[in-house]
Amino acid sequence: MSNLDCQSASEIVIFGALGDLSRRKLLPALYQLEVCGLINENSRIVGAARPEHTLEEFKTIVLENLNTFVKEQLNDEVVTRFMNRLVYQELDFKDSSSFTKLADTLATGNDTRIYYFSTAPSIFGDICKGLHHADLIQDQDRVVMEKPIGHSLESSIDINNQVSDYFKENQTYRIDHYLGKETVLNLLVLRFANSLFSNNWDRDSIDHVQITVAESVGIEGRWGFYDGAGQMRDMVQNHMLQVLSLLAMEPPADLSAESVRIEKLKVVKALKPINKDNIKEKAVRGQYSDGFLEGSAVPGYLNEEDANENSNTETFVAIKAEIDNWRWTGVPFYLRTGKRMPKKHSEIVVHFKKPPHNIFKDSYSDLPANKLTIRLQPDEGVELQMMNKIPGIASQMRIQENKLDLSFSDTYQDQRVVDAYERLMLEILNGNQSLFVSRDEVEAAWIWADSIIDAWKTTGESPKPYAAGSWGPVSSISLIARDDRQWVE
Amino acid sequence: MSNLDCQSASEIVIFGALGDLSRRKLLPALYQLEVCGLINENSRIVGAARPEHTLEEFKTIVLENLNTFVKEQLNDEVVTRFMNRLVYQELDFKDSSSFTKLADTLATGNDTRIYYFSTAPSIFGDICKGLHHADLIQDQDRVVMEKPIGHSLESSIDINNQVSDYFKENQTYRIDHYLGKETVLNLLVLRFANSLFSNNWDRDSIDHVQITVAESVGIEGRWGFYDGAGQMRDMVQNHMLQVLSLLAMEPPADLSAESVRIEKLKVVKALKPINKDNIKEKAVRGQYSDGFLEGSAVPGYLNEEDANENSNTETFVAIKAEIDNWRWTGVPFYLRTGKRMPKKHSEIVVHFKKPPHNIFKDSYSDLPANKLTIRLQPDEGVELQMMNKIPGIASQMRIQENKLDLSFSDTYQDQRVVDAYERLMLEILNGNQSLFVSRDEVEAAWIWADSIIDAWKTTGESPKPYAAGSWGPVSSISLIARDDRQWVE
Repeated sequence: MSNLDCQSASEIVIFGALGDLSRRKLLPALYQLEVCGLINENSRIVGAARPEHTLEEFKTIVLENLNTFVKEQLNDEVVTRFMNRLVYQELDFKDSSSFTKLADTLATGNDTRIYYFSTAPSIFGDICKGLHHADLIQDQDRVVMEKPIGHSLESSIDINNQVSDYFKENQTYRIDHYLGKETVLNLLVLRFANSLFSNNWDRDSIDHVQITVAESVGIEGRWGFYDGAGQMRDMVQNHMLQVLSLLAMEPPADLSAESVRIEKLKVVKALKPINKDNIKEKAVRGQYSDGFLEGSAVPGYLNEEDANENSNTETFVAIKAEIDNWRWTGVPFYLRTGKRMPKKHSEIVVHFKKPPHNIFKDSYSDLPANKLTIRLQPDEGVELQMMNKIPGIASQMRIQENKLDLSFSDTYQDQRVVDAYERLMLEILNGNQSLFVSRDEVEAAWIWADSIIDAWKTTGESPKPYAAGSWGPVSSISLIARDDRQWVE
Repeated sequence: MSNLDCQSASEIVIFGALGDLSRRKLLPALYQLEVCGLINENSRIVGAARPEHTLEEFKTIVLENLNTFVKEQLNDEVVTRFMNRLVYQELDFKDSSSFTKLADTLATGNDTRIYYFSTAPSIFGDICKGLHHADLIQDQDRVVMEKPIGHSLESSIDINNQVSDYFKENQTYRIDHYLGKETVLNLLVLRFANSLFSNNWDRDSIDHVQITVAESVGIEGRWGFYDGAGQMRDMVQNHMLQVLSLLAMEPPADLSAESVRIEKLKVVKALKPINKDNIKEKAVRGQYSDGFLEGSAVPGYLNEEDANENSNTETFVAIKAEIDNWRWTGVPFYLRTGKRMPKKHSEIVVHFKKPPHNIFKDSYSDLPANKLTIRLQPDEGVELQMMNKIPGIASQMRIQENKLDLSFSDTYQDQRVVDAYERLMLEILNGNQSLFVSRDEVEAAWIWADSIIDAWKTTGESPKPYAAGSWGPVSSISLIARDDRQWVE
């Protein structure tokens, strides 16, 4: 995806270095890149945050975090090397004048700066102003925007504008961590390095696609935050549309950001609009009620701590997405995502068409279709479901569905599972935007998502209840059953 | 393939019951069908042979054979049931008048008779005359002809005529045991129950096909017999063309003998003729010379016991077979078979076309094609070779070829490996001819094979020597290298 030669020494400035994301993901990801020798020896990591800390205190915090969030035994030598890169910068992000302190810190450093905005999006504009005030923005610098980028088209434009006033699009790296997942990247390889799939990736060969992102967790104490968003904004507009667009895009001429992102954008733009006229056929939203999960009673969404019992926010969405273009006309992409589902389980299942004619009627009256399953969670892997003859002697030719399995954890037992943030961080260091979301994509995704959210608002229908621990409301089953299909269980 | 309802009680008469094939294969196969309860309870097994034996002596011989050739522990109850079916008939096959004794034996038996000719083909005619003489041929009876059926078109016509004077084609079951192999049958399922293959089984998707049947054994003390045949007659004309025709045939409308055999026949008839004008480009024959195999010195073909040192008989054949029809124009089927190869190894490898364009040049400059491998020997199994991303963090997207593996012995560990003769015997009992070779097929195959054998005779070139324990003469590598391809190793 990227070329190591691009990577020059840089100042990696993390705004919000003491925050949850930084502690859980960014610093551990940088540590892992350090293990692999993938960070330029002269690069520094500058933690910027509000509290006053000495460098030693910061290092102590970072070490604690690494001990907590890096699964493997830490390597002392690597830790030493990593710690030597650390710099701490106390900073009030809302006070532009305080950024001169940051300028002093960076003055002795490297030419290229990577500004990682690991804060609430509402502060992105302030940080940009501060950087500008201290004359800290150069053409070669990069800015990384953490999600969520808005909660609607309008707000996303606002946030993007606040940043684009100071940084050009080719400097801007918008994170969607799904794009860093191993199996999501493997999608590209599966599709474009295998003629068996590249030749069969269209309406002639594929019947439909299912994308499921099921979480067993509920709101995890963030009721108020979640209630302002809902599952459509939290999962569909970003992650699921990203996966959908990688699945459905035309083959790009190469893997450059320019080539890949334009193809993804075309998919999102070609999504058939869902609005008040067709919302009932095309989308279902649900909200979990009291139920049981793994043997324990769990409260419904409206009975969670801090809940507003009149909330109409959805915790489940099922959508029949259709792509109006030459490749995909007539091939639905069924999306399904929810909280408090029976298990954590994310997968893409490509259902190929059934063989047009069955010569094995005697032994198998209804031949199942070939299916390619790409598992994202909890374990990553690829499976191809095919029909095979069962060995053995019997009067009928016995055949059955078998899985040709390529489980990542089995096949690559010695390989550590790489976190999505490691991949994305490396791409940022290398200056490659392919795995980041362009502004055009964000906005096209919001246009489609907003239309659905607006339609729900307009029709005024409440989300359908589903028991916590179930696979969503009954109407989500009807959504796909109307097309004579069913969700993969 | 067949329907148990068809199976009525029958007299199973094995001519040559004390011969090698009967002892090693036919009786053990019948025993295994007995284990599975697949033989009608009233069916009898009549062993017919020259020597005088009491029934008890015959039973003793059969039990010895079962102990030797059935891999599993014998089941006493099943053995008892099996033994109770046995009848012995001393018979001089060349003396028609002696068949009246057989008539007496069968008189008390079942309506349908299965005459299994497990003798040299030269005796088939005599047996038919004897059966006719004793008025033992009825419309519902079946005759099973063991290979080889001739050593040329002319001699095969002669043998077929000797039988067809007394039996109709729909009563005649010509054995090619390759058609009873599990993975050969699985070919049908793979091709016709999986749209991923049925949609990609033509010149648009497939680059070429390789069929290898390698044996490590040499002549095994049968020099004189083998020298009269050679590898072309012993392996290509029958087994390899059968596999080729199942691989390449148009989808039959159903699995009936009528539908399947006409499609197979069309393939053999569409084979581009190889004659003296193109033999040098299309075919290579070889003869093994002294060499080493598994660490031991082994003699060359001309230095084997009883060898005629001037023999021009080939022990190796490589052919570029081409099928002149709409589906396969431009797709070569490379056949390769030989004795004294490095190991026993039979497989079909379908090489799909490479992706037309490589977007992974940075990490993999020459993307390999997808390959479907169907292993016949020594273990049976199916593998699909595909490209996958290697998990792990690195600047380049690392991809590699992986096998989605469906090894029969691993996947179906509890399943005994079924011998080809069990399947074929069951189909005979059930009266289903699908897995037997029609007269038209035999003759079409001989026309093609004779042309090659004649061309070798006409050009007068000796077989190319290859060291025992190697993969054949260098010119067999050139045969495929000229097309910028290579044999799978």
